[in-house]
Amino acid sequence: MALLVQKFGGTSVGTTERIEAVADKVCRFRKEGHDVVVVVSAMSGETNRLIGLASAIMDEPTPREMDVLVSTGEQVTIALLSMALQKRGCEARSYTGSQVRILTDSTHTKARIRQIDEQRMREDLDAGRVVVVAGFQGIDENGNITTLGRGGSDTTAVALAAALKADECQIYTDVDGVYTTDPRVVDSARRLDRITFEEMIEMASLGSKVLQIRSVEFAGKYNVPLRVLSSFQDGGGTLITFEDDEVMEQPVVSGIAFNRDEAKLTISGVPDTPGSALGILKPVSEANIEVDMIVQNVGADNRTDFTFTVHRNDFNRARDVLNKVAADLGAREVSGDNKIAKVSIVGVGMRSHAGVATTMFEALSHEGINIQMISTSEIKISVVIDEKYLELAVRALHSAFDLDKPEGEA
Amino acid sequence: MALLVQKFGGTSVGTTERIEAVADKVCRFRKEGHDVVVVVSAMSGETNRLIGLASAIMDEPTPREMDVLVSTGEQVTIALLSMALQKRGCEARSYTGSQVRILTDSTHTKARIRQIDEQRMREDLDAGRVVVVAGFQGIDENGNITTLGRGGSDTTAVALAAALKADECQIYTDVDGVYTTDPRVVDSARRLDRITFEEMIEMASLGSKVLQIRSVEFAGKYNVPLRVLSSFQDGGGTLITFEDDEVMEQPVVSGIAFNRDEAKLTISGVPDTPGSALGILKPVSEANIEVDMIVQNVGADNRTDFTFTVHRNDFNRARDVLNKVAADLGAREVSGDNKIAKVSIVGVGMRSHAGVATTMFEALSHEGINIQMISTSEIKISVVIDEKYLELAVRALHSAFDLDKPEGEA
Repeated sequence: MALLVQKFGGTSVGTTERIEAVADKVCRFRKEGHDVVVVVSAMSGETNRLIGLASAIMDEPTPREMDVLVSTGEQVTIALLSMALQKRGCEARSYTGSQVRILTDSTHTKARIRQIDEQRMREDLDAGRVVVVAGFQGIDENGNITTLGRGGSDTTAVALAAALKADECQIYTDVDGVYTTDPRVVDSARRLDRITFEEMIEMASLGSKVLQIRSVEFAGKYNVPLRVLSSFQDGGGTLITFEDDEVMEQPVVSGIAFNRDEAKLTISGVPDTPGSALGILKPVSEANIEVDMIVQNVGADNRTDFTFTVHRNDFNRARDVLNKVAADLGAREVSGDNKIAKVSIVGVGMRSHAGVATTMFEALSHEGINIQMISTSEIKISVVIDEKYLELAVRALHSAFDLDKPEGEA
Repeated sequence: MALLVQKFGGTSVGTTERIEAVADKVCRFRKEGHDVVVVVSAMSGETNRLIGLASAIMDEPTPREMDVLVSTGEQVTIALLSMALQKRGCEARSYTGSQVRILTDSTHTKARIRQIDEQRMREDLDAGRVVVVAGFQGIDENGNITTLGRGGSDTTAVALAAALKADECQIYTDVDGVYTTDPRVVDSARRLDRITFEEMIEMASLGSKVLQIRSVEFAGKYNVPLRVLSSFQDGGGTLITFEDDEVMEQPVVSGIAFNRDEAKLTISGVPDTPGSALGILKPVSEANIEVDMIVQNVGADNRTDFTFTVHRNDFNRARDVLNKVAADLGAREVSGDNKIAKVSIVGVGMRSHAGVATTMFEALSHEGINIQMISTSEIKISVVIDEKYLELAVRALHSAFDLDKPEGEA
């Protein structure tokens, strides 16, 4: 008999019918003898409805009042889900972030959790009740309502699991787990039974948007076993594990992630002096533009070419900044391309296996795909290619690393 | 410069446009130098929407969860109104019932206020901020969210005014004050500048539904000057005063109230023994039927006729109960009439004036209206008549007591 924290997102509780389906699922776990804490988001559409009301009044609503407003969304869901559980003879009690005392800092609309008082939840669990907690929200030291920002319900679930030392934190979503790559691109994409935290973080940040990256980091920090499952289908989902727990042989590459949201900018012929990289990136960062990949090469003439990627939405703004920088630094020219895609192979197995990059580059070359940028980390290799080759590249890599085959056979 | 508590109901905050209009009004008072605490209800329709969601899940939703659900309605309004105030450069801060710590008992869906912590509000007022508080809701000793029942926002406003020792509690509504009678029935009905608490309570319980009776009682208990005003028109409204404050001459009768919601039941030929009234009313009360007027006459044959009124919705149920009672008690027969109306004259002046009843009965008799039941209290005389004479009776009485004429001339 385990203590489970189960999180259901907005789509899973989008209608009263769906809330009843969630109640069926939760009751089943309860009747099997598990202790269950449920974390829910606002019904899908509700948060946007509330934001719409605020926008009708004020262009930039005050963050404190925004939190008071949008936190009502989850409060509605916890009440409805508790009712649906009670209807099934499953004792339940709802709690807002303030009631369960999810103490956060005072950064309204993107607060961070500081501390959770698990005493009250523990009493309910001991009394056989399901505890239903509003995700995404908390309270600061002065009793002000705060929210954790969009997607923060995952973080709430992980934080509760950590505070309660839960056996598992189950994130129910509209996908049934983490796949070797996007099944819409590769037919033979396969659900992974397990994936390591590190891989998951790399996958999430690379665009496999199954989980909020902050919640994954949080889970890693507090050793919370995290499982991604489908709200709508049965199945074991994907368990996110700590690498060290695993004695079994790891596949070399666990998945292929990709991202079409980026654009590439190059500033060429920059005099290669100390501080030139800073001179380029500081104005970009000051314009609140986030930079992803960075590549720099020094040429023979002591001038350097500096290339980086930004979100495609920031492309024009970044180019304007860069044109100004180029003039200041005496660089030769600024060029850019927003028709690129990033493809990454991710796997903790590549640490101990040589030649992974070779296999990757070979597969791409075999398809005639030119690599424009390369960036590597310990468990990931990313390349930037022409956007039009994206699907081809993903399929070629999926096959080259034997991801089509059942786990263990690779 | 006064400390004002202003309450705006659901219709007054029914859209974002109306919330902006409320903000205009509140800002005006603030700029005149008054300290303002605003209490708001849920946007009109919102509470019903939430109840609809609950009904879709459960026929009789658990009261605790119902309170968690519906209390979100006011929480939305406080956030939106605070934003609208801030937009106008009027510093404001919103508080839920839990945040301002409106401590209630634990009777979910109809809790009673026990205590209010005015410290936090006082700090905001001292700092020049408008305090915006969610009406209708509180928190019990264990931190559970409670609600005061429908219309409870009036009670919240009065309770805050009492706790803060406010100079005036202003209830903004869709009428511009308390009238001598319903202007839809009598064209010459006139707005009263003042009315006493006692009269107001009698008027409210008799169907002049301007204010929730509980809030009026509360105001009386804590000596809170209460004013009813219109959200949509300017004007001084009606001030509800303590009789003792008034040295001026009171009019004999202040208003004519009426009610079409009642039905009459008679059980005749009941043996007149001790306990017979109890034998009749106890089963009615046990069936959760509320009884309003009661009249009993003992006849010559030591048998008694016992007549009482109930809400029209309870008529059939009450008759069934009474038929059973008649058999048990050996009464002659049960009869009933649900085509009746109750008309009442109300006024603290009648205490010191004889002949008020005579004037009333004369006016009705003059119009050929038969009186079926009479009931009196110190400041009120009520009669039950045939429903079809209701408008005629109200007009005749309004004129007989000179209510058409401006105050002071009566």
